[in-house]
This record gives sequence, structure tokens and C-alpha cells, in this order.
Amino acid sequence: MAIVTLLTDSGESDHYIAAIKARIVTVNPNLRIIDISHSIRMFDIGHAAFVLRSVFRDFPKGTVHIAGVDAAGNRGEIPVIVRLEEHFFVGRDNGLFSLISDQPPTGVWEIVIQDPGLTTFPEKEIVAGTAARLAGGEDPGSLGKAVGDLRRLIDRQVKATRKQITGHIIRVDHFGNLITNIPRQAFEVLSKGKGYTVQFGGEKFRRVHSHYNQAEQGECFLVFNSLNFLEIGIYKGNAAELLGLSYDSVVNITFDE
Amino acid sequence: MAIVTLLTDSGESDHYIAAIKARIVTVNPNLRIIDISHSIRMFDIGHAAFVLRSVFRDFPKGTVHIAGVDAAGNRGEIPVIVRLEEHFFVGRDNGLFSLISDQPPTGVWEIVIQDPGLTTFPEKEIVAGTAARLAGGEDPGSLGKAVGDLRRLIDRQVKATRKQITGHIIRVDHFGNLITNIPRQAFEVLSKGKGYTVQFGGEKFRRVHSHYNQAEQGECFLVFNSLNFLEIGIYKGNAAELLGLSYDSVVNITFDE
Amino acid sequence: MAIVTLLTDSGESDHYIAAIKARIVTVNPNLRIIDISHSIRMFDIGHAAFVLRSVFRDFPKGTVHIAGVDAAGNRGEIPVIVRLEEHFFVGRDNGLFSLISDQPPTGVWEIVIQDPGLTTFPEKEIVAGTAARLAGGEDPGSLGKAVGDLRRLIDRQVKATRKQITGHIIRVDHFGNLITNIPRQAFEVLSKGKGYTVQFGGEKFRRVHSHYNQAEQGECFLVFNSLNFLEIGIYKGNAAELLGLSYDSVVNITFDE
Repeated sequence: MAIVTLLTDSGESDHYIAAIKARIVTVNPNLRIIDISHSIRMFDIGHAAFVLRSVFRDFPKGTVHIAGVDAAGNRGEIPVIVRLEEHFFVGRDNGLFSLISDQPPTGVWEIVIQDPGLTTFPEKEIVAGTAARLAGGEDPGSLGKAVGDLRRLIDRQVKATRKQITGHIIRVDHFGNLITNIPRQAFEVLSKGKGYTVQFGGEKFRRVHSHYNQAEQGECFLVFNSLNFLEIGIYKGNAAELLGLSYDSVVNITFDE
Repeated sequence: MAIVTLLTDSGESDHYIAAIKARIVTVNPNLRIIDISHSIRMFDIGHAAFVLRSVFRDFPKGTVHIAGVDAAGNRGEIPVIVRLEEHFFVGRDNGLFSLISDQPPTGVWEIVIQDPGLTTFPEKEIVAGTAARLAGGEDPGSLGKAVGDLRRLIDRQVKATRKQITGHIIRVDHFGNLITNIPRQAFEVLSKGKGYTVQFGGEKFRRVHSHYNQAEQGECFLVFNSLNFLEIGIYKGNAAELLGLSYDSVVNITFDE
Repeated sequence: MAIVTLLTDSGESDHYIAAIKARIVTVNPNLRIIDISHSIRMFDIGHAAFVLRSVFRDFPKGTVHIAGVDAAGNRGEIPVIVRLEEHFFVGRDNGLFSLISDQPPTGVWEIVIQDPGLTTFPEKEIVAGTAARLAGGEDPGSLGKAVGDLRRLIDRQVKATRKQITGHIIRVDHFGNLITNIPRQAFEVLSKGKGYTVQFGGEKFRRVHSHYNQAEQGECFLVFNSLNFLEIGIYKGNAAELLGLSYDSVVNITFDE
């Protein structure tokens, strides 16, 4: 069964998600639908991009991912089909899809809407059916008009020199763990044969663990997580609350001379 | 695959929903189960009816919809099968099914319980199996005893004259948008060639938008939504909080002379 | 379709659950995945055990149940496969599986991890794939190394004499109902032909109902629920809040002389 995934900020107490699913299975009853999350913070494209970027490659190639976040959107944003790393993405061209990969898309198609005034629920009325047809094997070129590129948003970047890496917290997860944008690879290259100090809030650490449970209960751990980004947490505690850090807080690594 | 949908007020932290699903797939492993919502407010038949009414027609005809809201129920309420607009509904006869369509049911069957004292979890023990058999193609007449009608509840009605339409907010959605029971059709007939004023709380508007994003950020929009009811919101804001309106607040449209 | 169930404390706002599902369907696209809950309180093995124990037998025999609760775990805990009452369970050996049945497992296999330092997300990287292969019919002996037994945790026990049963509240459910560990069978044997008094908080009752709705609105009901344990609630109210009781509160039944 081909797969369609769903990522929205719609919550769970309305008819919106079921309406999208109903449309998908009506257009193509042979698809598997997998929810990624419907608990994205309202209108938060950064949160949505983090989650989608962290998981889409785990699905088989050819999977179709629907993103319906900040779906009412801004004027001029149109629904698009994007092909990226051999996955398909369908949703409003609001910048989200520019944040999920460093690779350029291998195709962008604008979904032509006959009468834009007629739809106030495009995820159901336009996106769901397009996604179902794509997952059923239809060609994106038959479902939309090829266009040049996506709307681009720029993410917080890591700054790295020989002496220092400066990054930010890009996600506070359900457990209160603080996920940074500091990649394992940069750290490993720069720390080779050197001591280092990791600083955030008022804290200083001179060690990165290889596993969450190498800290004692109530103590900080620093690990490179399964996404290969530096993650800070408190073992069996909520690091965001206990350290007073949140989205966009700075994390510094200074390498010894 | 035939479809069974699930709508409950059971939340997500117990075994209840999984127990219902386990029963369905045990009785018939060839069904697709789609969750509508498990975040209906506890015992809130109005909330459940709004959500079910807003989405059931999006599913293919013949779909079986389980409703398990206020499921402990009141004495004398029995589980029923209802056929309505070529869909099936299974659940306690607590009035919910009378609120989801203006059309009369084309069949109501009482599910005969051998020993009512023996079950404290009828959604699992009675409703789930009946729904699975219905979805598998069994005749409702073989699963219950035909009865005359449903228990009826009466919803808030819109009042319309040539001068005025008076409606109410019937749902505050996840985004804080205020969905009224004022239908597009009545508005279009009465507003033809006339100016009008929409009033709610202390606000007055003389325009309905065709799309959410025609308002500026932080400003009110008024649209007829995908259900064709008047909806009031604040673009990228929470209208319920910012306007101080809630379920059952009055919305008036006055037409110019 | 063979079934894999999922029970975690991961919440719904991250990529974790979708990553586990993606791995399952990548390893074996012919499985049905059913969520039990992702709203287990963080790190709460008791909550997870209650939910899993209450529902796993409702699934067909041979179902594979993934438990990812307190998954970062404590040092020395390893992922295991457990065969118990003809179901399979896969997850960290943190004591959870010892709390879901009074029967001993009919097999425990340790999943051998090549390099434990390399994984910070074992539910995705180890558990999901193993579960998918088990559900596909592979032999547990080919997926792990047979070991003697599970890590054991001891649950709160009921004390019963001819004069008294003393139990505890072991779960406050979504509705605020208080589920105790007092089993119907012990009560029925000891109460035969005798009056009795049920006490909790400052309340005393001399009757157990056979159904939730035999109480009046706002009044206490006492029933043996579908799990055959004594449950205390307030009909259409929240018993935990209104009675001031919570997890681990004592419930006593005294039998008349």
C-alpha cells in the first residue's frame, strides 16, 4: 500500500482531520494513511518543519506527505506539489517545504484552483485529492503546472569557527528535552584531540554523553541524538523548565586552545 | 475496505479506544478504522453532533459510524443502529443521531442486549461488534429489532425575517474560530441587492469575506466556511478569546431598508 | 493482517511516533498498526502497565505489542521480546512487562544490540524492526537470545480477610473515575449473604451498582467494571476532583458480622 502522511496544526477536537482522510480514501481506497502529528503549534511553520524534516526520510521513497500547517495562509500562497529526495509533499507554498532539506527540489508544481474564492478548506478540497492521486501513481505534471521554485524561508544557522560553535535550541520536545541545531559532524571535526566546554544558560559542561541514561537522575545529559544534533536534557526531568531555556536560546561550544 | 469511524469523549490516556478497535478487528479483520475524534468534551452531545454532522457525508456511502459520547448514558437509553442518508450509525440512543441530519432515518434498529446488567462497557461489548458486522455487509435487521424512531433532541434554530437573521455560535473550534448556525443560503437570499450589518459582542461589520486570509493579521474575518455556515475569526489569532465570545453567543445580521 | 500495537509516553507533538511507524511499515508493509495510547504520563510504568494489562487480551492472539514508556531507561535495561498468554511484547526490560499478567512468560529473548552507544532512539532503531519481523511470522529465537526471565516489579496488592478487603486506587481515568485493584471475585465470595460497607475518603456506601447509570446525576456509583475491578465514580461528574481522591488512595470494604 502506498502511504500518505498527515501533518497539521488542527488539533483533535474538530472534523478537519477526518474530513481530509475521508477525501483521501474516497479518491483512492487502497492507501495507508499515517498521522505524523496534529499537535503542531498553531501557525508555527518552524515547529512543523522540524517534525517533518526529522521523519520524512524514515518513510519509503515515493511516500506523499501532506502538510496543513498555517493552512489558511497568507495571500498569494498557493497549494503546490514538491518532489524532494524522492518523496512528494503537498500543501500550501508557505515556506515550510524550503526548511526540510538542504537539497533542492527536483520538481515543483502549482496546483491550479479553478475558483479560489470557492474554497475555505483547501486541505480537504484540493490537497487531499491531489495527494491521493499522487500516491496512486499519477504523474505530478498531470496534477499541476510545473513552476520554477518554492517560496524560501531561512532557518537559524549554526556559526562554526575553529574556536567555537554557536547554535540555538530549535525544538523543545514533549519531554522538555532541548534539541539544538549543532550537528554531530561539525563537533567531531572541531573537537578532535581537544577539550571543550558546552555552555547554555548558566551551565557549563565538558562532556557529551553517548546515551541519555549515562547521567544520574535529575542531572543534565548532553547527547547527539538520533538526528545527529546536540540535545540537552535532564534525565527523568524537564530540562526546559528546570534550566529556564526555550526555543531559540543560545548554546555555545568553545574548544580549548 | 469498508470503513468504520470512531467518535468518542474518551480521551487518549486509557485503554477504552484500543479495546473498541481490538473488538472491531477481531470480528472483521478486513475493515479500515478511521478516528474522527476522541477529544469530544465529556458528555457533550452537542459537540459530538456538530463534528459528526460536519464530516460523515465526506465518507463513502455505507460507512459505519460509531458514536460513543456520554456513553454511560441515562437510564432507558439503548444501543441502536440508525440508517441515515445511506450511512450507518451505531451507538446509544441519546439524541445525538437526531442532531446530525434534517432528513429522517430510513431505518432504526434496537440492538437487543441479553443481560443489560452484565455490561459496563457497551461500546466494546455491544457496539463495536455490531458495527464490524454491519460494515462487513450483514443486514441491520439481523443485528437488531426494527423500531419506530430515534430519541429526538432539538437544536438551537436560526430565526430569519426579511429584516434580520439571528443565529448562535454553535462551535468554537481548535483555532478559536466561531462557527455559527447561520446558513449561506438564507443570507444570500435575504442580502440580495442590500447592504447589511453583522453584529456580535460589541462588533459591527458590513462585509463578509470570501476567504480567511482577506483580513489583515489580527483583524476579524467573516466567511461562509466549507460547511456553508457563517464563521467569525481573527486572522492568525484566537477570536473566542479576543472577542470574549463562546458557545451559544448571539450573532445578528440586519439588512438595510 | 497481523497487528502491531503501540503504547508510549511520547505525546503527539514530535516525530517520534511517526518514526516508529515508518520503520514498521518499511520492514513489513502488510501490518496493521493500532495505537493504544501515546498519552501515558512521562516515565510512568504503572500507568502504562495498567493500560496494557487492560486491553492486550482484546487483540487477537499473536498480536505484537510495542511498549515505549520510560524508554530512555535506566542503565542495564535492554530491549527484550516477551511471549505471554500467546501475545508478544517488545520493549525495554524495565519491569513493565512483569506487571501485565499473573501468568509467567512462556519466553523471554534479549535483543542483541551491536553497539549500544550508537543508538539514542531504540524504539525506532531496534524495537520497531523487531516487532515488524515478529508480526510477520519470524521466530523470536532468530531475533534475540533466549534468557531466563524478566525484570520484576511488584504491584500494590489487595489484602483480603473474612472481615475486610483493603485495596487501592490504581488508575484515575479520563473521566475522573477511580479504578481500584479490588477484584469482583473476592468481593463476591466474601460478601455472600452478608451486608457490607465500602469506605473511601470520608464516604461510606452499603451498595454496589450493576451499572454506571443507576446512580443519580452528581451521585456516587460503585460498579465492578468491564475489567472486573471495583470502580468508583460520580455519574456525569469527576469523582477524583469531587471526592479528593487520587492514585494510591485506600478503599476498604468491611463485611458485617
